[in-house]
Formats: sequence, structure tokens, C-alpha cells
Amino acid sequence: MHSLLRRIGDTFLCEPVKSLVLPDGFRFHHGEVISPFTIVYETFGELNVARDNAVLVCHALSPGAHAAGKYAPDDAKPGWWDGLIGYEKGIDLARWFVICVNFPGSPWGTTAPQTTDPSTDTPYGSRYPAVTVEDMVESQRLVAEHLGIDRLAAVVGSSLGGMEVLMWAALHPRRMRSIICLAAAAAVPVASVAWHLIGRKLIQADPAFNGGDYYDRKDNLRGLELARMVGHMTYLSEQAMERKFGRRRRGGTRQFEVDSYLEHQAQRFAGAYDANSYIRVQAAMDEMDLEEQFGSLDKAFAGFRGKALLVSFDTDWLFPSKEVTRIHEAMQQAGVEDVSHVQISTPNGHDAFLVDYPLVNPPIREFLARV
Amino acid sequence: MHSLLRRIGDTFLCEPVKSLVLPDGFRFHHGEVISPFTIVYETFGELNVARDNAVLVCHALSPGAHAAGKYAPDDAKPGWWDGLIGYEKGIDLARWFVICVNFPGSPWGTTAPQTTDPSTDTPYGSRYPAVTVEDMVESQRLVAEHLGIDRLAAVVGSSLGGMEVLMWAALHPRRMRSIICLAAAAAVPVASVAWHLIGRKLIQADPAFNGGDYYDRKDNLRGLELARMVGHMTYLSEQAMERKFGRRRRGGTRQFEVDSYLEHQAQRFAGAYDANSYIRVQAAMDEMDLEEQFGSLDKAFAGFRGKALLVSFDTDWLFPSKEVTRIHEAMQQAGVEDVSHVQISTPNGHDAFLVDYPLVNPPIREFLARV
Repeated sequence: MHSLLRRIGDTFLCEPVKSLVLPDGFRFHHGEVISPFTIVYETFGELNVARDNAVLVCHALSPGAHAAGKYAPDDAKPGWWDGLIGYEKGIDLARWFVICVNFPGSPWGTTAPQTTDPSTDTPYGSRYPAVTVEDMVESQRLVAEHLGIDRLAAVVGSSLGGMEVLMWAALHPRRMRSIICLAAAAAVPVASVAWHLIGRKLIQADPAFNGGDYYDRKDNLRGLELARMVGHMTYLSEQAMERKFGRRRRGGTRQFEVDSYLEHQAQRFAGAYDANSYIRVQAAMDEMDLEEQFGSLDKAFAGFRGKALLVSFDTDWLFPSKEVTRIHEAMQQAGVEDVSHVQISTPNGHDAFLVDYPLVNPPIREFLARV
Repeated sequence: MHSLLRRIGDTFLCEPVKSLVLPDGFRFHHGEVISPFTIVYETFGELNVARDNAVLVCHALSPGAHAAGKYAPDDAKPGWWDGLIGYEKGIDLARWFVICVNFPGSPWGTTAPQTTDPSTDTPYGSRYPAVTVEDMVESQRLVAEHLGIDRLAAVVGSSLGGMEVLMWAALHPRRMRSIICLAAAAAVPVASVAWHLIGRKLIQADPAFNGGDYYDRKDNLRGLELARMVGHMTYLSEQAMERKFGRRRRGGTRQFEVDSYLEHQAQRFAGAYDANSYIRVQAAMDEMDLEEQFGSLDKAFAGFRGKALLVSFDTDWLFPSKEVTRIHEAMQQAGVEDVSHVQISTPNGHDAFLVDYPLVNPPIREFLARV
């Protein structure tokens, strides 16, 4: 496989996306089955002979399985977490074999609401089931099994990806040696739930959404653009907005720069992302609640005996640092011996895990060296 | 007038709403004239013979001129700032004569977008001009003039009302002996501007809004409900939401309590408030920028020689405390001798000025005793 490795500037040439086809379908947590069902995933680096160097990277709401590298040297951008995953980076591919699975509900290749249902020859649309974080974990577990990996070296993720990491620790506590969880919580705090709910209402209020069956349309759904603006706001810190835009207007006009920025980002997002996926993935996030599910956080982590690295950002108000402190305390209470919480100070809010690599990579690298 | 005074429990029987009719119309800051034009206002307490005990109270986005008291003993609720204005309260009506003017754009009696244009026999709707904070101040100045008051004892307001207070100090610095400004800023900070913009986009995205000409509809505008949800969120602190709702569900359902609360409040608001007013009043707020208008905050306050009391709340993220600190510093720089900034610690966020009367009334009472 080493022959595939070719550096391209700061990044590398990655392998093409892979598929796991489930001819008998995927059974969702709430009981529905979609059959057949395809799960797409990517791998980076090489699995060693002992099969004990696999790191599962869990993605969040917007990205997919393409976590790092470029498919071709002239790709405009590398994968979404290329700043962390790569040769000599936080997760060093010289040592680790990284897997990233596109989870059910997401629109990036795995059978999704926008996928054509072969039995009706129309997209699943409104008929696609509600998705849970358990479904995301299950899709990742199926891929690991398919690759012959019994035990992962680490499960890593941020934001919703970090929630998947915690769900892994709760559901399959012996199937990994360590976890790394950034900018997440064991349940979305109420203020963030409220913002998410508002976002979903915006999509549903758009008459063009049509209950989820809108695939004969060409235009962006304005409801999805508006929901993205709300979402985008919750990822930014006030400090970052002050610095980036302040009250400045666009040259020669009275339009606020922040307005132009939010519109541009929202249109870009809504032109690429699917509204049915958005509402399902975000609802999955809001519905996860380890405390409710297991009775207490201590109980949720009772079976986990690996090492844990928790990372939070002081300006993240979607998942405030105190939520991570609660996980830290619960893990200690549950008897997890090697758990630490790194609180990073940054003006970049929730998005810091995609921006502040000089702050994020060193603790992850050091932690993984001990795994 | 003393015969009119009658206590009703914690509040009092107030006088009916009054009107100032401008037969030649009202000239808006940007040049448009609506003619004839009616300004409604209320007064509370008695103007003394010297006409030097008048306190102008400036209202914010949602309320109107009915600032305190009840029209009839069986009114469900008193005026919106009844906790502050009354006998033996923060603004004691035994001493002060309070005026509250419903400003142009607002839907509570003054000629508004929903008012029928006598020349067309249809509501002004989309043809109603853009409103500015200068227009609000001008409507208040006209009423003061009409009442024969040359100089106000104090100009008081919170949120948008506090911005009007600052505009008074900048435009008519010698027409008041003092100002009291709560939970406001000399310009809306960028994060709050962004939330406001998103709210207005939600209204405009609702096809039923129809560019502002929707008065033949009976139903609430969903766009206004959604905008109110976004607005409501910005008034709440995370602490208050955690305490009030947490992640609790409504009995027997999976609906989050916070969802039910936001829907209920939004429906109530949209059933009463007018969408055209909402977008105009909020845009006025966002467009005000004393620094841009006067070159600097020092210059904006250069003519003001009265006393100033500034109040901020530590959990207010719509108008963070540091914005009030900037006003404080600018006033000191401008040579205002008697200016103080009271920073109140409360879990109630921006709405604290409507909730935390035990914290808000004492400094206001003490300050007014010195005026």
C-alpha cells in the first residue's frame, strides 16, 4: 500500500472512497429497515498485521467520510480534518490506520433520504427513517467488522462526532483502547437544542420543502439556507465576529459585511447539503442523552476501561466547557483511570477544532503516543 | 388630577391613552411625510407648576405607551414597566410626571404600517417608510413640546429604549437634566445585528408576508413567529434556560419543554404584533450607530452636561456589559462629570430590566433623588 502514498504539499494522495453493501439492509435503531443499503467509508494509512493500529474518526453534521488527503493532486481542497490527520500531524498516518465512515442520514454517499428507492424509483425523501447516534455508531461498527478489526486503537471525533465517541464508549466499551472527544457533550445543552429546533422549523416552514419530498426542484431551499445561518451563528464566537466583521458595511453599500458572509455561506451550504439529511442528523444529535438512556453518566461509562482525552474550547457556546467537565467527572467516578480534560483558550468558538490545529494537534499526538 | 389616583393592589389606576394629531403630518428622518399623523402617548403622575418634574420613558421593540398602571381595576396586567414606575417604586409618581410615547413604526396606536391610509383606504403596509431612532426621538420631542415641557428631568429607557436615551443625549443634549440607560449600546454589536438580520429574513421568506401587504390575512405569519423565536432566544441567558427548562420533555411526550415554550410565546407575539412594524423597528435599532454618525462616541456626547446613570447586566449577550463600559468611558472623555455604570449580576440575561426590580429600582431611585 505504501506505493499509494504520495505527498502533495501539506497533504497526501488518498485512496478512493470505498463501499460496504449490505444486501439484507440496515436496521435502524427504531426498527425500520432499508434494504439494500450501502455504507461508504474511506481509509487513510495502512492497517498493520496485528490489526491494532486502527483509529476510527467520527464525522459531524456537515462533512462525510473524506476526512483527509486529496483524491487527485488538483483537488481544490483536501478532506475536512486534513489539519489533524496526515503524515507528521496530530494523527500520524505513519503509525495509524484511519477509518472514517459516512453515517446513515448524511448525504455524502451512504444510502440517504436523497437516494433513489429501487422499489419506487423515487428518492426515499420523507419515507427515510429518523436517525439516531446509535445508528451512526452501528454503521461504523459494521465497517470495522468488515475490515476485520475487533478492537480499535482509538475512536476520535468532535462536535456530533464527539457525541458518537461517547456513545461508542457507552455501547461498546471494550472495543477500543482509547477515546478522544472534542467540543461535545453527553447530551446537547438546552440552549443549543433550542437553536437546533428553530433551524428545523425554518426548513419545515418553507412550502418548497413539501414535507421532505422536494427532489424535483432545482433551486436551493430558502428554509435550509436560513437554518444554516442560524447554525452558522452558533459555531461562531462573538469575539470572532467582532474581529472578522464588526459593524462594517460592504464597500459602497449599507449591507452589513456579516450579512453578506452569512448569505454566501448559507447559499453554498444549501446548494450542496440535503435538507432531509440536515433535519435527521441534527435531530439525532438533540435526541442523544446518555444520562437519560443509562440512568446516569457514571453508569454510561461504567464499562469503559480505556484511556480518554477530552478537549473543550472556552468560547464554544454550543457545547460549553462545563459539559466536558461533567463527562470528565463522571468518567473519574466510573473508575476510568486515565482521563484528562484539556481546556483550550481560543477566540474561534465551536469551530476551533477545524481551525486551531497548533493548539489541538499536540495534546492529541501526545495522547496517542501513550495508546 | 389627584382625584384620578387610585391604588389597585401593587399598581394604580392610570389615565386613558392620549393622542397628538399632526394635521401637517410627520416628517421621517429619511424625508418621507405621512399626513395626517397621530402620535399616541400616556402620562402618569402629575406635572408640577414649574414643569420640571417630567421623566420621559422610552419604550423598546415590543411594548407601547402603556408603561404602567391599569386602565380599569380588572385589567389582566398593568403596563409593561409597572415594576419600575409607580408610587414608591424606582420612578416614584409621588414626585415624577412620567411620559411614554408610542413611536412611529410601532403597532400600538401611533400611525403605523397597519394603519389605513385615508388616501387609498388600505393599510400603508409596504409603503410605510423605514424608521430610525431619530424618528422615535422626534415623536417624543413633539409630545414634550405639546405638553409645554422645555427641559426633561430625565430620559429613561432600556434595550432599544436605552438607545433612544443615548440618541436624545446626542441630538438634544441640553433638553434634559439626566439620562438613565439600561441594557443598551451606542450601536448594536455585530452578533446581535446578525441575529436581527436573520429574524427579518425569516419574515421576508414567508410567502404570506407578500412584501409587506398581507392585511387581508387572518392567520399569524409563520415567518413572524419564527423571527420571534430567534429574538426570544437572544433575550434569554443560558443559565435561565437551564434552570427553566433543561432538557425536560413535556409530560408523556418527546417534545422538549423549551420547544413548547418558544412556540407558545411566538404564537402569542405574532398574534398581537405586526410584522411590518417588527422589521422596521428592529432595522432602526441596527442602523443606529452614534460612532459612525458623530465620528466618535466622545463627540456624540460632547454637548451633554447632565447626570448619567448607565446600567448593564452580566448575562446580557444582546448588549454585553462591555458596550456600556465604552459609553461610560466616552462620557467621561467628553467631560460628563456625573456618570456612573452599575453592573448588575443576574441570571436573567437581557430581560433582567423587566424582571429584577429589587436590583434595578434602588440605583434608579437613588440617582433620581440627586436630579
